Amino acid sequence: MASSKVTPLSGFPELLPAERLLELHFLDTVREVFELHGFAPIETRAVEPVERLIGKGGDADKEIYGIHRLADGEAERPGRDADLGLHFDLTVPFARYVLEHAGKLSFPFRRYQIQKVWRGERPQEGRYREFTQADIDVVDVGELAPHFEAEMPLVIAEAFRRLPVGDFRIQVNNRKIPEGFYLGLGLSDVAGTLRIVDKLDKIGPENVARLLVEAGATEEQAQACLALAEIRTDDTSFVERVRALGVEHPTLDEGLTALAAVIDTGRAVAPGVLVADLRIARGLDYYTGTVYETQIVGNEEWGSVCSGGRYDSLASDGRTTYPGVGISIGLSRLVHLLISKRGLSASRSTPAAVLVAVTAEEDRAASTQVAAALRARGIPCEVAPKADRFGKQIRYADRRGIPFVWFPGARVDEETQVAHDQVKDIRSGEQVDADAATWTCPDEDLRPQLVQTS
Amino acid sequence: MASSKVTPLSGFPELLPAERLLELHFLDTVREVFELHGFAPIETRAVEPVERLIGKGGDADKEIYGIHRLADGEAERPGRDADLGLHFDLTVPFARYVLEHAGKLSFPFRRYQIQKVWRGERPQEGRYREFTQADIDVVDVGELAPHFEAEMPLVIAEAFRRLPVGDFRIQVNNRKIPEGFYLGLGLSDVAGTLRIVDKLDKIGPENVARLLVEAGATEEQAQACLALAEIRTDDTSFVERVRALGVEHPTLDEGLTALAAVIDTGRAVAPGVLVADLRIARGLDYYTGTVYETQIVGNEEWGSVCSGGRYDSLASDGRTTYPGVGISIGLSRLVHLLISKRGLSASRSTPAAVLVAVTAEEDRAASTQVAAALRARGIPCEVAPKADRFGKQIRYADRRGIPFVWFPGARVDEETQVAHDQVKDIRSGEQVDADAATWTCPDEDLRPQLVQTS
Repeated sequence: MASSKVTPLSGFPELLPAERLLELHFLDTVREVFELHGFAPIETRAVEPVERLIGKGGDADKEIYGIHRLADGEAERPGRDADLGLHFDLTVPFARYVLEHAGKLSFPFRRYQIQKVWRGERPQEGRYREFTQADIDVVDVGELAPHFEAEMPLVIAEAFRRLPVGDFRIQVNNRKIPEGFYLGLGLSDVAGTLRIVDKLDKIGPENVARLLVEAGATEEQAQACLALAEIRTDDTSFVERVRALGVEHPTLDEGLTALAAVIDTGRAVAPGVLVADLRIARGLDYYTGTVYETQIVGNEEWGSVCSGGRYDSLASDGRTTYPGVGISIGLSRLVHLLISKRGLSASRSTPAAVLVAVTAEEDRAASTQVAAALRARGIPCEVAPKADRFGKQIRYADRRGIPFVWFPGARVDEETQVAHDQVKDIRSGEQVDADAATWTCPDEDLRPQLVQTS
Repeated sequence: MASSKVTPLSGFPELLPAERLLELHFLDTVREVFELHGFAPIETRAVEPVERLIGKGGDADKEIYGIHRLADGEAERPGRDADLGLHFDLTVPFARYVLEHAGKLSFPFRRYQIQKVWRGERPQEGRYREFTQADIDVVDVGELAPHFEAEMPLVIAEAFRRLPVGDFRIQVNNRKIPEGFYLGLGLSDVAGTLRIVDKLDKIGPENVARLLVEAGATEEQAQACLALAEIRTDDTSFVERVRALGVEHPTLDEGLTALAAVIDTGRAVAPGVLVADLRIARGLDYYTGTVYETQIVGNEEWGSVCSGGRYDSLASDGRTTYPGVGISIGLSRLVHLLISKRGLSASRSTPAAVLVAVTAEEDRAASTQVAAALRARGIPCEVAPKADRFGKQIRYADRRGIPFVWFPGARVDEETQVAHDQVKDIRSGEQVDADAATWTCPDEDLRPQLVQTS
């Protein structure tokens, strides 16, 4: 069954084993921190009815992949399944999960969810059509306590501090601040104004001011919008700076109080991590209060690697509303960036710490027994695939970065004629007697280490 | 944003948190065993070109989900992406991965892969349209050593022994046995004969014999085929029993020798686990030698929960062929069956072992500090969402199965007026002084336990 030519698919990157080991380290770390904080794991199905996906994600409806059964044939599309699409985030499916299973969940419900999502957008560096997100969310029935809005980014901060990402800043805003500010200014088209101000990074303040005036704002109103967007403080002094702009509105007050509470808690628990940044808006339609973005310091051009916010009415069945707040790590994006931009990888391409050599093919069972004894004590190992000469078996280990090679019965005691196993550290060349029932692998060699390869 | 009515999708089951914790225990155990055996992790993208999927999986081409971008509109289907489909197993994508990345891999290449797959077949109990598979495979360049064929099922046996599945049997056959046997009998349509004999369980021996005769076999040939299919031994005595049928063919000899080697190794390493069962065929087209199926003893009606085999020419770029052997656990199927048929679940619906109570909303920071101290020592915990009266906070923990509730400063020493934290085991009601910097959670309570709920 000869196969046709194999070509990569743009937007669907794949990792080599050492890179996947790095990604697994990220996934395991994130999951461990989520579980330490009492988030319960769930997964949702990969597909949702298209009508549930559309209109929940700004421009995301343009990026949805529909699915169809090939067996249904061309004529029948859209057939029975043609109204199903692959999810483009984990928040919309989570909201649906909460509605569907509400009777069997306890609220407030804290969950984490680590899964693939798909977006049919144009692939570019750091933007993929398939990628893994790692989300935490809390939802409650009717009302959601505001302290959860401070908790979400602090959980992420704890995870990031355990990962080799360097310094990072979680930027927090509250949508009620620009909303109340614009209304207080006399600009009633909040969404339109936000959309223009959101282009600040791309087109600069002059163009933003021009667009705002074109949309009906006065020059003063436009300058006030720009002044608000420029406020960024790592303490609650942003409140005074907003007040100094002289705009008043009850929604603005709500937003300032809520954001000040988040920043205050952040300063107490993890100083220097949270920044009030009044420019942050988030594209997704469903956010109603606090919003988050995360920058890796020194690599701000990567964009946000972890984003989220509060949504008050995403999950509602008409009678009951389940407000929530959550944050999502763009995990494979982050890992791919660290691999390609910082040369991060794992120290070996296999979990195996030991290669058990095979002296002769008829003695393979002896090597298998050594391997079983090592594994019984948690040491990952592999038996050599072929009874090649030892130099070749050592090269096999070396090519994969396996640090130790085990030689069953390698040294025969001259006096007693008893054969002793030996183990060689192939980095130092040191070879010593060893017993598979007692030998311990140095802790740092037991699992692949994270390394900088470039 | 009120949402429309939520209904489950047939074939796309979802787990509740406690059930997902059970599934994660299975996933973690399987992954740990795979890594102990030196299998390297990879993931492949969820989509493959449809032409690569079709014809590789028996009837699977009827079950493939194609994907299309909604933005491409009706008219443009099949558009740029319309020739992509969701993978229906992990073997076909793995073969493509090997071809695509061969220059960067070291052979023999041992990998594990745990991912979702999708099949558009009719949903029924234990058959889903989306499910997780956990695969191990070894591929080599040009030739693959036969000892790997014994290793694969033994790795699975090690994983299953660590899981609450009860007794199981891995049935092994070698396709060369029926092939050589049929050819030796004078039946040249090997595939057609196999297809008929494969119906034995469904339609019984008389109907199989009738169909074989209708297909051109003599009555004696048909009876010989049935006699072969009935051979099942847990040692190598199957060889004599086949020989006693008096059929000779070099391919038959090859198959018998290969299967005897697998069964011999199995008896030495894990007695009673491997069974030579000459009825096993496996539907997938790409197997060329050893094939495996796995039955849970007492629940044979569930069908095979772990299957695989050797494929000599699945991965080939025309110049180089990469023969492989692998085995795949139908993991979500197995977990769903254990949940629904044996009432298996996890002892709680959250990873949290401790709920830290909040005495008053203004003292929340004190509870957060206790939680941080516990987490720093690896104890998963959650801070109570609301400073309700303690009875209500205890009920919050109880509903989730959280065994301990922590009360900051609960006991004030009468003499010294110093406040001491206390922790209550809400199962026994016992409440004792505790220090968050030193208290240890009993090992059996640190993680959710597996329990039988019915």
